[in-house]
Amino acid sequence: MPADAAETRPVTPSPPLPGAANRPYPRVIRRFVRLGAREEVSRMLDRTYPADVVQIMKALSPAERKAFVDILVGHARAGSVLAVLPESLTIDILAQVSDERVAAVVSRQPPDEATLLLRLLPEARTEAVLKLLDEATSGILDRLLTYGPETAGGMMTTRFLALERSTRVSEAISRIRGEPEAETAFYLYVVDAAGHLEGVVSLRQLVLARPDQELHAIMNSKVLRARADQPRAEVADLITRYKLLALPVVDAGSVLAGIVTVDDALDAMADETTREMYRMAGLNTEDSVTSTARDSVRRRLGWMLINLGTAVLASWVVWFFEGTIAKVVALATFMPIVAGMGGNGATQALTVVIRGIAIGELEFSSAGRVIWKEILVGVSVGVVTGAVMAVIAFLWKGNPVMGLVICLAMIINLFVAGFAGAAIPIVLKWFQIDPAMGSGVIVTTFTDCFGFLSFLGIGTLLIRYLV
Amino acid sequence: MPADAAETRPVTPSPPLPGAANRPYPRVIRRFVRLGAREEVSRMLDRTYPADVVQIMKALSPAERKAFVDILVGHARAGSVLAVLPESLTIDILAQVSDERVAAVVSRQPPDEATLLLRLLPEARTEAVLKLLDEATSGILDRLLTYGPETAGGMMTTRFLALERSTRVSEAISRIRGEPEAETAFYLYVVDAAGHLEGVVSLRQLVLARPDQELHAIMNSKVLRARADQPRAEVADLITRYKLLALPVVDAGSVLAGIVTVDDALDAMADETTREMYRMAGLNTEDSVTSTARDSVRRRLGWMLINLGTAVLASWVVWFFEGTIAKVVALATFMPIVAGMGGNGATQALTVVIRGIAIGELEFSSAGRVIWKEILVGVSVGVVTGAVMAVIAFLWKGNPVMGLVICLAMIINLFVAGFAGAAIPIVLKWFQIDPAMGSGVIVTTFTDCFGFLSFLGIGTLLIRYLV
Repeated sequence: MPADAAETRPVTPSPPLPGAANRPYPRVIRRFVRLGAREEVSRMLDRTYPADVVQIMKALSPAERKAFVDILVGHARAGSVLAVLPESLTIDILAQVSDERVAAVVSRQPPDEATLLLRLLPEARTEAVLKLLDEATSGILDRLLTYGPETAGGMMTTRFLALERSTRVSEAISRIRGEPEAETAFYLYVVDAAGHLEGVVSLRQLVLARPDQELHAIMNSKVLRARADQPRAEVADLITRYKLLALPVVDAGSVLAGIVTVDDALDAMADETTREMYRMAGLNTEDSVTSTARDSVRRRLGWMLINLGTAVLASWVVWFFEGTIAKVVALATFMPIVAGMGGNGATQALTVVIRGIAIGELEFSSAGRVIWKEILVGVSVGVVTGAVMAVIAFLWKGNPVMGLVICLAMIINLFVAGFAGAAIPIVLKWFQIDPAMGSGVIVTTFTDCFGFLSFLGIGTLLIRYLV
Repeated sequence: MPADAAETRPVTPSPPLPGAANRPYPRVIRRFVRLGAREEVSRMLDRTYPADVVQIMKALSPAERKAFVDILVGHARAGSVLAVLPESLTIDILAQVSDERVAAVVSRQPPDEATLLLRLLPEARTEAVLKLLDEATSGILDRLLTYGPETAGGMMTTRFLALERSTRVSEAISRIRGEPEAETAFYLYVVDAAGHLEGVVSLRQLVLARPDQELHAIMNSKVLRARADQPRAEVADLITRYKLLALPVVDAGSVLAGIVTVDDALDAMADETTREMYRMAGLNTEDSVTSTARDSVRRRLGWMLINLGTAVLASWVVWFFEGTIAKVVALATFMPIVAGMGGNGATQALTVVIRGIAIGELEFSSAGRVIWKEILVGVSVGVVTGAVMAVIAFLWKGNPVMGLVICLAMIINLFVAGFAGAAIPIVLKWFQIDPAMGSGVIVTTFTDCFGFLSFLGIGTLLIRYLV
């Protein structure tokens, strides 16, 4: 067996051995692609890490990329490469490849990667590709595709090692030798005759055990597990919190159905981060730098129309004070300051609280204390920035009362910002709604409306000193 | 050896075996704590996963928590528990414990966890605790503490298995038996006599090899590695991208100095997410729901004063048009709409582009195309929402020109929003500045100023139709 197994094995089980530190040579590959030297390109691919192929593709012109993709798809490691390329790029590649070639790639992928790939195809093509596969493979993939893409079932692979409880250590070791394609051989799962998950043995324990021991004697029988329908975020959280390398997934009847490995948890975490930030900005999770302008417009328009509604609400508050503004136009000049400071203060409070909820720190501090603290911070920041602004307004307009009005309005609005920024995500969470969901817009609606109300309201009360 | 090694081993190497599915029983523990039954609490801790201790602590009153902490710190697994509790809570716990007890905990922790814990102490206490440790341990920790907390060196553990290239497989296996505390025994590193990293062997390869083979014959000699001073984000990225379980860290002379394991990469990713979201909101990374109001005010005030400056800039634009507003007060009513829609559109463009940069998708699409797309999206959204707003303004004010003015201003401002939202993070990235760094404020300054300029400017041009 060659020393570098990861390079020559046709299917690279993930996570593979940390090897092949070879950097890709985009220039050399580019020359070979131009020359149409398929053999040489293929041989360079043998020595390139899947994750590095994206660097190569970046260096190619569209025509060269087409030729390169043609070679890549025929390569034994095409599946591993397609699994790590940016999704939009994989979709482009799949679009230029026949169903037969997709089927050939899929048949060599581990089931979790194959499922991810099939999900990127239009439904009709998925069906067509499944028909081209052998019955066993298409059966497994068909079943995996029934799970939602954001559940444990949708993330899991079916390539795991499960042996019965009475298996001897020596036999288990020879089974590992015989199944080089099991997703991770770091854990060996122990099941009963009906496939129910009973325990787990680490490869390390196997190495340390006597060859004639039976698995049930060395297994750990208290195994953390996920249900197949459990949300992806929870699976990633379990793997992170309990520092696992793999988490077994069981179906409704406690039968071991698959495993989710730590590398999938890392991918899921990146996706969840995107979702959290997108939700704060009111973006659809499908949106990205690579989606077309038409798709982005369609996805963002609804949210922007809601924004328009909340903005009209704020402008309605201003309309209420048109009489005051007509008398003291300078008030209009300072309106953006009150609104802007409130919006920024609220965004800060909101971000801290949403992160606190996401990483579990807020659970620990009481919600009431956190809201109270953000109010205190808001008022303190309001007093300092309000005082600075009062001096600016006095110097600008020559009227100390104008300084007083804007200072008071800023303090009140940063009070509102602290309260709304902390309370709204906590309340959303309480109602089991994603706390990031649109909270940005709700909170700035609050600060806009209360900002204008307090600023123009105080201005109206003190109008005799302003005109 | 008992079946569940993770439970009884005093130091739990991470990542441990996925076992101990026992849920904590906060109520039962609470009763034992009240009764002062140290033995029982200690025995329950034996069977509790470190990550679940936070649930127990949540259920306790302050007095009970103090009593519980006293038992916890004396427990063999105190180190693993302190390593997974929220940082603020660990700091509280350390504050109520003597240097001697901290030293006892640290001496039983793996070096990476010990370093993290020591970093939470005030510097003088760190020195005091180090003096209480045996020379070998304090030497290792002293060296690890010299690396920045956000570098590979600051994340790594020194508990790895490194054997010389001529070691036989049989001997390697017995070495594994002898060192149950090695951080992960999934990889075995191969070094030369001077400690230079030469290769890696997976435990799996070891199991499959003949006992008399020498390690160099089965090792993978192309090993991905990190330099000790490499930033944490890069280390996490390498581990994610190449799907590694552990990454060796070498010092300036290529000598193997430690390893970073995948669970540390998961923690680092969560920290990097916080940083990205915080930077967008202009927050200091130290800020959190658990920091005191005084600390938060100190950390946020500088940024809010910068915000005040940019807000004054926007209000200066409005001041320029005070004459127009004096004649047509209704313009003041619609100002918040132009600014609000521009700000939200910019936040959407910004979030998509910052995420695109973070997950590497933007690298692939050309920056020019992304900026152009966001402009197109902005203008399209501007046309639709502007038309809706034109109708609202007409119905509200009975003047079709007012509708036209706000519609045009919204289109222009959403053009600016798309351009600035996409271009500013790309330009920051170009200058090797974190693209999230304050881009929120820069972008909304753009949309505020251009929004008021276009709205009030067009209003001034068409003023004869508005009065």
